[in-house]
Amino acid sequence: MLETELTRALHIRYPIIQAPMAGGPTTADLVAAVSNAGGLGSLGAGYLTPEQIRLAIQEIRARTDRPFAVNLFVPEQPTESEAAIAEMTAYLNVYREALGIPSNPLIPSFSESFEEQVRVLLEERIPVLSFTFGIPPQEVIQAMKDQGSFVIGTATTVDEAIRLEAAGVDAVVAQGSEAGGHRGTFLKDASGSLIGAMALVPQMADHVSLPVIASGGIMDGRGLVASLALGAAAVQMGTAFLACTESGAHPAYKQKILSENEDATEITRAYSGKAARGIRTDFMRDMQQYSGTIPDYPIQNAMTRDIRQAAAKANRPEYMSLWAGQGLRLASSRSAAAIIRQTVDQANALAQRLTGLGTSGHLK
Amino acid sequence: MLETELTRALHIRYPIIQAPMAGGPTTADLVAAVSNAGGLGSLGAGYLTPEQIRLAIQEIRARTDRPFAVNLFVPEQPTESEAAIAEMTAYLNVYREALGIPSNPLIPSFSESFEEQVRVLLEERIPVLSFTFGIPPQEVIQAMKDQGSFVIGTATTVDEAIRLEAAGVDAVVAQGSEAGGHRGTFLKDASGSLIGAMALVPQMADHVSLPVIASGGIMDGRGLVASLALGAAAVQMGTAFLACTESGAHPAYKQKILSENEDATEITRAYSGKAARGIRTDFMRDMQQYSGTIPDYPIQNAMTRDIRQAAAKANRPEYMSLWAGQGLRLASSRSAAAIIRQTVDQANALAQRLTGLGTSGHLK
Repeated sequence: MLETELTRALHIRYPIIQAPMAGGPTTADLVAAVSNAGGLGSLGAGYLTPEQIRLAIQEIRARTDRPFAVNLFVPEQPTESEAAIAEMTAYLNVYREALGIPSNPLIPSFSESFEEQVRVLLEERIPVLSFTFGIPPQEVIQAMKDQGSFVIGTATTVDEAIRLEAAGVDAVVAQGSEAGGHRGTFLKDASGSLIGAMALVPQMADHVSLPVIASGGIMDGRGLVASLALGAAAVQMGTAFLACTESGAHPAYKQKILSENEDATEITRAYSGKAARGIRTDFMRDMQQYSGTIPDYPIQNAMTRDIRQAAAKANRPEYMSLWAGQGLRLASSRSAAAIIRQTVDQANALAQRLTGLGTSGHLK
Repeated sequence: MLETELTRALHIRYPIIQAPMAGGPTTADLVAAVSNAGGLGSLGAGYLTPEQIRLAIQEIRARTDRPFAVNLFVPEQPTESEAAIAEMTAYLNVYREALGIPSNPLIPSFSESFEEQVRVLLEERIPVLSFTFGIPPQEVIQAMKDQGSFVIGTATTVDEAIRLEAAGVDAVVAQGSEAGGHRGTFLKDASGSLIGAMALVPQMADHVSLPVIASGGIMDGRGLVASLALGAAAVQMGTAFLACTESGAHPAYKQKILSENEDATEITRAYSGKAARGIRTDFMRDMQQYSGTIPDYPIQNAMTRDIRQAAAKANRPEYMSLWAGQGLRLASSRSAAAIIRQTVDQANALAQRLTGLGTSGHLK
């Protein structure tokens, strides 16, 4: 059961993928620690420049000879409104003042060049590419597969998984509504695609022949066994690793992860213009009262970057993006290896108990 | 594993509870069919008069000698605003005109008397009381327990489960965000309590010593095994039974249940003033544009009753409340007994496969 076609194809020991959390948490130490422990570490590279990606890959390879994944954001064309940008710039100046940073900064480039990011991944011949926010051009998927990469897409509905299968990916992440961070929704409004993993995984598994990777609220061996029972071939765990030793998350962010409860998060467009789940902050609450239009991703993301960075420097989590899933009470500050070890041990023990279900006659 | 303290306490064969779906689906035939098949049938009695409840209990008892549950809504004190009610009355007249029913009807009594409902349950010495929307007065819980009823509460967060345990209930339903129908949230705003079952069940199981009953998106043996793996002692399945032979759901409602997908639902206050998950309708979509204040439950529920009833009579599902969970693609039109049989068989087969997880050495 546990050695699935997916673990064989990925050459990993356990069906545990560390979720690609862009923006800091996925240090080379974390990615390598997960892969060395028998899982699949993932570099969240969506916000990284091509040169930063190359450097990170080299750092990971210096720490492990096991497979790892690099995750990219599929670019999208935002609707640009100069009026909305001007209004948001003025609104955000309140936070800049509070943080003592310059008002009306020049907006940096909205996002990195996807083509240049992909070129580095091809040159580095990475073992696994995962992506979210859509479907890359056909030639990108083909080029990655041609050079030997395993390609994983992200879906929040059955229809998205069917589209990814048609595009030729090798496996698909079923992103449940519990998941922290950005929603991977690309066919509709993200609010219509908040399907809990309990419902999403079996329905997706029924409608694609690809291996399905369950994600959203999976924190331990219970979540792993539950996901396999639902039809998944592996799990992707993010929040479970966010506060671990090797995570590069800001200390104040880690502290929040370790102290908050399952109902501390909500979906917001405040930080990036794209729906994402995070621990409620003053910044999110304030933005709910914002009367203007929040610019689309990646514009809003670029516009709030200076604030998020200054807030991190000033240790003010109330203005930081604290992406997190709904499994918060189960987060751990131990090492990535210890988290994987405990997940596997708990899954084994549970499987032993579930054995009775099939053989003891209780369920006849 | 499957014969839990809960199945023993409830005197049922399988850890499968049919969710109490008030408003029509839970006919005596459905409740009795589920109980006769080894699960626990539940009468959704929240909207029934005391005499209707007594009659339904007698009908159930004429069809089965197995245990069954009756579910009540814990009353709450709505904020009443005459202006909001007047504005809503005028707004709703558009639908009344479309349906050819009288405008500006007298609003019927907001809800049934909880005390009188409870009196019938005590007189009838029902085997199981379940409830939602809060915690009944201590003397009600005690009286039900004293006369031998098993008492089940409903929680959407860990804190709500802890409060229910302190109030003396015997078990608690963990209502995941996937679940159809009304949210049982009672400690905060329901939007803050949409926790997916994958995250909610293990966290709740860790924090109460009561048996936890998983609900939300559970449709088959996969969901059953997953829930047990997460730490649940049983599952509660609603949408799985909504379109079955014995369900009293309107034919147009059943047809929608059988034809819609996992992303067809959303949370709305349009019909009742309380957050509930249902298949998107014109009525819900229109109400999103409503500029006034939707009166609290149960006022709005009483105000829309004539419209929902006329829509059902006229076979116009676009104005009906089509409560449903996110497991829609897995709904079935077979008999309740066939659904339970298939759930149990699938769970057994899955458990056999999961056995390898603990013994084959793959997960070492």
